[in-house]
Amino acid sequence: MAYFADVEKVQYEGPKSRNPLAFKYYNPTEVVLGKTMEEHLRFAVSYWHTFTLQGNDPFGLPTMVRPWDGFQGMELAKKRVEAAFEFFDKLNVNYFCFHDRDIAPEGSTLRETNHNLDVIVNMIQEYMKSSGKKLLWNTANMFSNPRFVHGAATSADANVFAFAAAQVKKGLEVAKQLGAENYVFWGGREGYETLLNTDMKLELDNMARLLQMACDYADEIGFTGQFLLEPKPKEPTKHQYDFDAATTISFLKTHGLDGRFKLNIEANHATLAGHTFEHELYVSRIHNALGSVDANQGDPLLGWDTDEFPTDLYSTTLAMYQILKNGGLHSGGLNFDAKVRRASMTPVDLFYGHIAGMDTFARGLQVAARLTEDKVLDNFIEERYSSYQSEIGKTILDGTATFKTLEEYIIDKEFVVQTSGRQELLLSVLNQYLLEV
Amino acid sequence: MAYFADVEKVQYEGPKSRNPLAFKYYNPTEVVLGKTMEEHLRFAVSYWHTFTLQGNDPFGLPTMVRPWDGFQGMELAKKRVEAAFEFFDKLNVNYFCFHDRDIAPEGSTLRETNHNLDVIVNMIQEYMKSSGKKLLWNTANMFSNPRFVHGAATSADANVFAFAAAQVKKGLEVAKQLGAENYVFWGGREGYETLLNTDMKLELDNMARLLQMACDYADEIGFTGQFLLEPKPKEPTKHQYDFDAATTISFLKTHGLDGRFKLNIEANHATLAGHTFEHELYVSRIHNALGSVDANQGDPLLGWDTDEFPTDLYSTTLAMYQILKNGGLHSGGLNFDAKVRRASMTPVDLFYGHIAGMDTFARGLQVAARLTEDKVLDNFIEERYSSYQSEIGKTILDGTATFKTLEEYIIDKEFVVQTSGRQELLLSVLNQYLLEV
Amino acid sequence: MAYFADVEKVQYEGPKSRNPLAFKYYNPTEVVLGKTMEEHLRFAVSYWHTFTLQGNDPFGLPTMVRPWDGFQGMELAKKRVEAAFEFFDKLNVNYFCFHDRDIAPEGSTLRETNHNLDVIVNMIQEYMKSSGKKLLWNTANMFSNPRFVHGAATSADANVFAFAAAQVKKGLEVAKQLGAENYVFWGGREGYETLLNTDMKLELDNMARLLQMACDYADEIGFTGQFLLEPKPKEPTKHQYDFDAATTISFLKTHGLDGRFKLNIEANHATLAGHTFEHELYVSRIHNALGSVDANQGDPLLGWDTDEFPTDLYSTTLAMYQILKNGGLHSGGLNFDAKVRRASMTPVDLFYGHIAGMDTFARGLQVAARLTEDKVLDNFIEERYSSYQSEIGKTILDGTATFKTLEEYIIDKEFVVQTSGRQELLLSVLNQYLLEV
Amino acid sequence: MAYFADVEKVQYEGPKSRNPLAFKYYNPTEVVLGKTMEEHLRFAVSYWHTFTLQGNDPFGLPTMVRPWDGFQGMELAKKRVEAAFEFFDKLNVNYFCFHDRDIAPEGSTLRETNHNLDVIVNMIQEYMKSSGKKLLWNTANMFSNPRFVHGAATSADANVFAFAAAQVKKGLEVAKQLGAENYVFWGGREGYETLLNTDMKLELDNMARLLQMACDYADEIGFTGQFLLEPKPKEPTKHQYDFDAATTISFLKTHGLDGRFKLNIEANHATLAGHTFEHELYVSRIHNALGSVDANQGDPLLGWDTDEFPTDLYSTTLAMYQILKNGGLHSGGLNFDAKVRRASMTPVDLFYGHIAGMDTFARGLQVAARLTEDKVLDNFIEERYSSYQSEIGKTILDGTATFKTLEEYIIDKEFVVQTSGRQELLLSVLNQYLLEV
Repeated sequence: MAYFADVEKVQYEGPKSRNPLAFKYYNPTEVVLGKTMEEHLRFAVSYWHTFTLQGNDPFGLPTMVRPWDGFQGMELAKKRVEAAFEFFDKLNVNYFCFHDRDIAPEGSTLRETNHNLDVIVNMIQEYMKSSGKKLLWNTANMFSNPRFVHGAATSADANVFAFAAAQVKKGLEVAKQLGAENYVFWGGREGYETLLNTDMKLELDNMARLLQMACDYADEIGFTGQFLLEPKPKEPTKHQYDFDAATTISFLKTHGLDGRFKLNIEANHATLAGHTFEHELYVSRIHNALGSVDANQGDPLLGWDTDEFPTDLYSTTLAMYQILKNGGLHSGGLNFDAKVRRASMTPVDLFYGHIAGMDTFARGLQVAARLTEDKVLDNFIEERYSSYQSEIGKTILDGTATFKTLEEYIIDKEFVVQTSGRQELLLSVLNQYLLEV
Repeated sequence: MAYFADVEKVQYEGPKSRNPLAFKYYNPTEVVLGKTMEEHLRFAVSYWHTFTLQGNDPFGLPTMVRPWDGFQGMELAKKRVEAAFEFFDKLNVNYFCFHDRDIAPEGSTLRETNHNLDVIVNMIQEYMKSSGKKLLWNTANMFSNPRFVHGAATSADANVFAFAAAQVKKGLEVAKQLGAENYVFWGGREGYETLLNTDMKLELDNMARLLQMACDYADEIGFTGQFLLEPKPKEPTKHQYDFDAATTISFLKTHGLDGRFKLNIEANHATLAGHTFEHELYVSRIHNALGSVDANQGDPLLGWDTDEFPTDLYSTTLAMYQILKNGGLHSGGLNFDAKVRRASMTPVDLFYGHIAGMDTFARGLQVAARLTEDKVLDNFIEERYSSYQSEIGKTILDGTATFKTLEEYIIDKEFVVQTSGRQELLLSVLNQYLLEV
Repeated sequence: MAYFADVEKVQYEGPKSRNPLAFKYYNPTEVVLGKTMEEHLRFAVSYWHTFTLQGNDPFGLPTMVRPWDGFQGMELAKKRVEAAFEFFDKLNVNYFCFHDRDIAPEGSTLRETNHNLDVIVNMIQEYMKSSGKKLLWNTANMFSNPRFVHGAATSADANVFAFAAAQVKKGLEVAKQLGAENYVFWGGREGYETLLNTDMKLELDNMARLLQMACDYADEIGFTGQFLLEPKPKEPTKHQYDFDAATTISFLKTHGLDGRFKLNIEANHATLAGHTFEHELYVSRIHNALGSVDANQGDPLLGWDTDEFPTDLYSTTLAMYQILKNGGLHSGGLNFDAKVRRASMTPVDLFYGHIAGMDTFARGLQVAARLTEDKVLDNFIEERYSSYQSEIGKTILDGTATFKTLEEYIIDKEFVVQTSGRQELLLSVLNQYLLEV
Repeated sequence: MAYFADVEKVQYEGPKSRNPLAFKYYNPTEVVLGKTMEEHLRFAVSYWHTFTLQGNDPFGLPTMVRPWDGFQGMELAKKRVEAAFEFFDKLNVNYFCFHDRDIAPEGSTLRETNHNLDVIVNMIQEYMKSSGKKLLWNTANMFSNPRFVHGAATSADANVFAFAAAQVKKGLEVAKQLGAENYVFWGGREGYETLLNTDMKLELDNMARLLQMACDYADEIGFTGQFLLEPKPKEPTKHQYDFDAATTISFLKTHGLDGRFKLNIEANHATLAGHTFEHELYVSRIHNALGSVDANQGDPLLGWDTDEFPTDLYSTTLAMYQILKNGGLHSGGLNFDAKVRRASMTPVDLFYGHIAGMDTFARGLQVAARLTEDKVLDNFIEERYSSYQSEIGKTILDGTATFKTLEEYIIDKEFVVQTSGRQELLLSVLNQYLLEV
């Protein structure tokens, strides 16, 4: 273990610590609402952002300086596995996530590619055994290779659909082998660039066909992890089919797939779709579809997916509030789908980024827990909607009201004064909880 | 008939006419793909923008100069009816649309309000008979009155739900009396300002409850017009529940209402939601939910609903292309949910605005019809997806393919060259059709 | 004093207080970096949002319940003055701001309007004397009246320019009479709706002409308050000429007005222009143009000016950091150009809103002061740019370097490793300061 | 000449042609307002998008299929030169533009890099002589290499400033050698990622220092081409210093550089900054700063620089209208800073893209010329502002008016009715011109 030789195991040192390589708020064993922080938060490291990314952007070449620089091919892949497990250990994180192509290079045919994959998957399996680290989810990268230029399941070319199907088949086998708790589908290029050349109905039907085949094959091989779709509205395509939570739920219902899939909600995807992170979590939750979370944040003034480490305490507090309402994330977790900025090119920045995100979520959990315990919002909401608990309101909820009974009730009533929504007060209270927990 | 004394009946004079009060492209009797333009386009005038709006905005007072200025209350309401039917006649438009509160003032109770409404509805009914003009749809304004400050069906106050129910009941009775071809629900303030004080699940369930009651009551009184929901993502509330077509379809499916409702797609609402107008029409169409259209346009650089008259030929062409694919609008139509700019304050600007919109859609129809006849896009798309018509592709569509058969097919194949999507060429061809039809 | 009978004078009770009508962080006499909080923050109440606004929006009628409801015209204007000074006193705020039309109704000519204005200004002058409250700034409302439909100084009609000039003349006289510390120009409708009908050069030149006349007249009457322009990018017009700080500085330089004017930076206008609040403050500061602040916040997911009370601690911290760097606001202040939400309709919500804003800025000041004292960012930045303090870097700053000397220096050098920008670490530190001050 | 063997020289065939490889509107020798189309439009091919780009995006690998695939290093660079001149010839375009790094690979020191560059520049010089093709402008790529991670002239590292200076020095020498008509500065990474680590004032001053050195060196070597700055608001950095035309003009004035620099206005950069393309051209024009144009278009629903080929006739018409008002582009031109979509991967798509852009601009020129000849907008505007040509209006323009004379004039006047801005009518007329020229 010498990839991150300068970094000791990151420990909790409390809010006053000036050690940049310590946790100030994330204390894994601290109990909050009956569970440890570790059990609540289920942090995962993203293999791609942490071990594969090189810092290139549309205008520039790689900047990242990494201990595995200089290696290539399968050798590089193995070095990264070693470094990854050292990183998980030093960072005190139990879970990780990967795309198939993050961990092993492609060959010239799928058979060769799968062979490469098997070598590394076996190696990872050994490391998992010895370290106790777990796979939150894996997925298939069906967007980087030029064959996916028009999409994967929604490609205009049936050969590409076939390739995608075979690739997911292998992904499910890997998931089963490594005991993945979930399997994710992110619709990389499942969308369109222009409607002028697109058959949207065929493409959507094909997307459903591939997902149905995945269900069938998972049953066949006995993979019981949770299936997750990951909404995103745009980028790389002009329009991604899994636009947001509601759109994805609509798609699942239309194709009879809603029993089997939940959602992997990403903060930055939410804001690109015009929603807050907590909105997407809320929508998922009340449709019994909140599966897992891609924890990051975007820049509200930029129009692309910046995948920044989450450092906004408001966002993590309101997210954790929804997650607590959901009874936790169950088989899901908080995966840092986040990358250090291109200008944060040294290895230690990988630690700073994760620590920033973990501390921000830990504090968000604390604040959300206190809001929950004190029923600050619950009591306000209960009172606000109390007219539905008696008299005419009750008949609306129990289904006995009709247009006629309601008209009769209201037709001669003068205006009834409305009560204030108290938004400003509630925001003050939120700040007080944020600062004073 | 003397409200618009300066304006003669607007006639078709052809593309070279320099008469600003003539149609250059809209020729009602011109036959396009087997139907007249009038039958295809089914234009409707919005009562609110044309006869009620005064030109105030969040920063300024009314600017509009109108022939009915100086009248008040029921007298004003009657003058507007007279003016409206003169306008419909002079503009050569067969349909109109209104909210209940556009046409008659409120009283201090719903009973008084309904009485006012009846007087004007009866008057309108007479005018309809004598003029042959028809009601495309009516709706209930459940957002202007302060009682709706927290929403209508989604209000936190059961009394407001009751009021809304009674108001829709009356709306359906009016729809039946006037032979409305549709009845529209736009969720004025059905949404939230902050999640801190909101029970989203209760609110969505209540929205469904009201719609179900509307179905029941329509059945009871024998109103057979099409029900329409109108998606909009935000404004006036921070988040409107009927965010976009997909979200609204999801809501309908979740609550078992999808058989009874279609969508009224508004161009400017589409762009506010991050979609093109044609995208929303396409999504609605392939879900058998394209009901009617609110024809206007937004400003892509402004973040609010500007409700401009549609003058973008690209947008009307691609919209009409979807409408033709839908076999037309059936009971729906093209309602100009559009207002003249605040600085276009003279009555004749109302004509200029509508003429601009009608000509732009008429030309859009012509171009879309030629694209359809020549199968410009259809042939390209058919060829592009042709691999699904034989061999492996066929097995995907017919359901005989599985992950195993597809893997076997592809696992040893080398990369197959992709074909170009030809976006640049298709855009050139679109321009050529636009200019040369 | 009985307009807000339910509210006692708002006092500082400290962070743990559960009294919603107390300050938790704003302690006027607390000393921070050598000045009291009161001296640093110079809070002002906006007359328009607090005493004139009624809660109507583009989709709805007034909702606000106010103690002065039922009065009209000059009587209403007087009641509002009484209420205002009670409010300033109870809220513990020293400054206020108004537009001419907020405080007194218009007559049918400017002479009549000015007469109304004089009556109320005299009354305000008396109240100021007895209460010690001060006028941070006044301004002219040159956007609400329909005469300003095409702008004021940039109107297409010379009569409107003349009216605007006369209105500003009166505004300056009022400013002098009341001892205003600043006079603000917000370009209400100084912009365009469409370039098709606009002479942008003439309009910009006319805007400069009016400002030059204002300088001349201020000199003539001896008004020595600071002149301020207020950038805003759009709304109500499609394009406002004073788009942002840089644009406004460019305008001032082009017309030789830059010595006389500074900027009034509004948080929500910054974000509408695509900038952060702190960016606009920074740009103003380094151009010696930071004059005053309109303290509010927008919603990053909404495209219009929501004018919310500032409750985001990140934003107020980074704003106060720039203000401290500026050596304070000098004659400027923090004016709450913020309105309670339409659903916060009770009078006490006016207090909740202001308390929220004042506490959020007070905490922001504390955090910014600690960041300043500890030189957290200063030290990092000094080190980051240290290569400019010696050798080749020094020659660049002192002007002795040329392309030739620099080429000679670098032409044979191999790549030098860059240092990390440490964005993630700095964001962690910012959070720690936010929580632990 | 065999790189694009399938494509014949592209010829003008007129609007009815069905040949996808012919011009429908661009007829180089057609005379419009006294000049040929070729003289008006001065089209240029961007070397980077056409000969260097490979089709990778942040989510995917290269897709482009190119005749020079398989070559590397200097050999590749030479093949591209050969292909480029064949392309210019077949496309009938007279100008091209490049960054230094587009045409030749970097070495391990600047000396080696410059040597590579010289070899290719000499080769290009030969091709220019024999073909008559001309260099519209060249520029330095100071953003791709990792040394520029923190900017070039605005880097935190003085060594990087030195490198940038030396690189621009060489760029000016190349410009002189090849007779470039302009030299462009696009501030690749001149901006910031976070204010937390940034000294904005030092960075802006350094940017000015480098530009001043460039002026000095150009004088020294006798390079007389026009200097151009290219505004862009964001991407790759969060905030680019040359945000938009107004900001850049402000920067030039602040640093006394405004006499020497004009602007290179890019359509997609305009829309990212919240402006229309024609707005940025108009602002530049009235500040005597319209230098050249990067002709492309963005997607109004996407938040990044999509660099699409310009196919929107509205945009090209209104752009050409401003360019005609400017008396043409003088030493500037219309450079296609536009790339074929990633899915348009065949060589012939490069022709389709350019033909689409050239035809769209040619038609835009025709329409703009007719609008100019017929004085459609000029007459409307002259009438609209006519009150400034006599009486009180005249005194405003000639400087004799003061606040006192204007007050005296207006103080007893009743409201004067405003005239309509006629936006809807003008948009109808624009459509008619678009379709009927």
